[in-house]
Amino acid sequence: MAPRFYAPAAEKAGDAVDLPEDEAGHLTRVLRLTAGAPVRIFNGRGQEFDAVVETAAKGRVRVRIGSAHPAPHDPRVAVTLAQAVLKGDKMDDVVRDAVMMGVAAVQPIVTARTEVSLAALARARRRARWERIAIAAAKQCGRATVPPILEPRAFTVTVAALGRLTLPGPGLMFVEPATAEGAQTLGELAAAPPRETTVVIGPEGGWEAEELDRAAAVCRLVTLGSRTLRADAMAIVALAALYAVWKEY
Amino acid sequence: MAPRFYAPAAEKAGDAVDLPEDEAGHLTRVLRLTAGAPVRIFNGRGQEFDAVVETAAKGRVRVRIGSAHPAPHDPRVAVTLAQAVLKGDKMDDVVRDAVMMGVAAVQPIVTARTEVSLAALARARRRARWERIAIAAAKQCGRATVPPILEPRAFTVTVAALGRLTLPGPGLMFVEPATAEGAQTLGELAAAPPRETTVVIGPEGGWEAEELDRAAAVCRLVTLGSRTLRADAMAIVALAALYAVWKEY
Repeated sequence: MAPRFYAPAAEKAGDAVDLPEDEAGHLTRVLRLTAGAPVRIFNGRGQEFDAVVETAAKGRVRVRIGSAHPAPHDPRVAVTLAQAVLKGDKMDDVVRDAVMMGVAAVQPIVTARTEVSLAALARARRRARWERIAIAAAKQCGRATVPPILEPRAFTVTVAALGRLTLPGPGLMFVEPATAEGAQTLGELAAAPPRETTVVIGPEGGWEAEELDRAAAVCRLVTLGSRTLRADAMAIVALAALYAVWKEY
Repeated sequence: MAPRFYAPAAEKAGDAVDLPEDEAGHLTRVLRLTAGAPVRIFNGRGQEFDAVVETAAKGRVRVRIGSAHPAPHDPRVAVTLAQAVLKGDKMDDVVRDAVMMGVAAVQPIVTARTEVSLAALARARRRARWERIAIAAAKQCGRATVPPILEPRAFTVTVAALGRLTLPGPGLMFVEPATAEGAQTLGELAAAPPRETTVVIGPEGGWEAEELDRAAAVCRLVTLGSRTLRADAMAIVALAALYAVWKEY
């Protein structure tokens, strides 16, 4: 199969589009492709095309878009993953795996027990880093969609957004077995898949009681079994379990 | 809650048992507990007890077993995870998460595209390392069962064991979307959960055609969706999806 590149400007056959800088670098410096090379182009919005390199020089690459190519379907349920930012670079892996599993968007959140602040995330340009990871993950897994990484926000603001439905509801907030009073099991959730939903996953230290109370007003609280999982595995486990019960697999 | 320790010798109330060396070190050096401290003891075979430290000195700890304490149930389907050994220390994370999710046993396997050999695994005493990780994971997640880490073996030997049912069948071998010809989706698997099964997961480089042929004789080949996942996320995703369709969550 021809190597795949991300070019958000690609719209239809016949277009000549420039690759973004990172992609052009990958094509010329890593893969050492030159004019005439056949490639695949995906535009990040679900469309994929055959294409040919028209010019490739000094990190500037233009491709000529050919016929559309069927791309794998995204999951029927559009899941926004609202993930509390994890320590170190663990969030990178969660973003990568969530994109490969098919999420529709990632909403990084800062909770009471999140160790990093919104200011520190902005200073370190973490959102731009996660956007690059999302593109790389889409290339690797064969997706033609690059899910947006939303501006990181506070948990309280996220809950308010769920209440106003500016984030897709119904929200499903995953809680630890120990804090599971009143929480539902996955089997108790309505069998009919929603059209879209927001899945809320906490940080290493778990949720504060006040956060659980606030969320309970706008989210369903859900537990997965009786064993505690690592915070960095929680999103993957929750997504896989949800896609499975929604018959995505 | 009192801190939990692993003591395989614990059988019933009234027993006085010595903790294994690692556990004794954790109790005395890390938590600095002394005689009289209340603790919880699990024996790795599903039983948990209240207990009291009787003596604690120089890394030798004896506890007096009290009344049995209800432990979380293990999943109804006993899953043996046959995981191709991954590069670097990625296998450590897979073992840890698989134990926390509830697997019954881990069978490390060496496939055609596994980068490490059985001899190198033995030399580096990797199995003993994974056993320590399994104990630590059981402590962390609240399980009273420590699943055995089986002796690493070659893929071909593993397949033969599945054929003879010395590993629990039916085997479910997870394959990439690209090699999915003839593979079933999760939804196509019988809805009735088996009593036990072996879940077979490949290495970074995937399966060779000959391996797929061999396995097809004794395993069901299964795909999860149309996107390629990272090798180190595959076991967690497969286990979560299986437990979900088997109504474990």
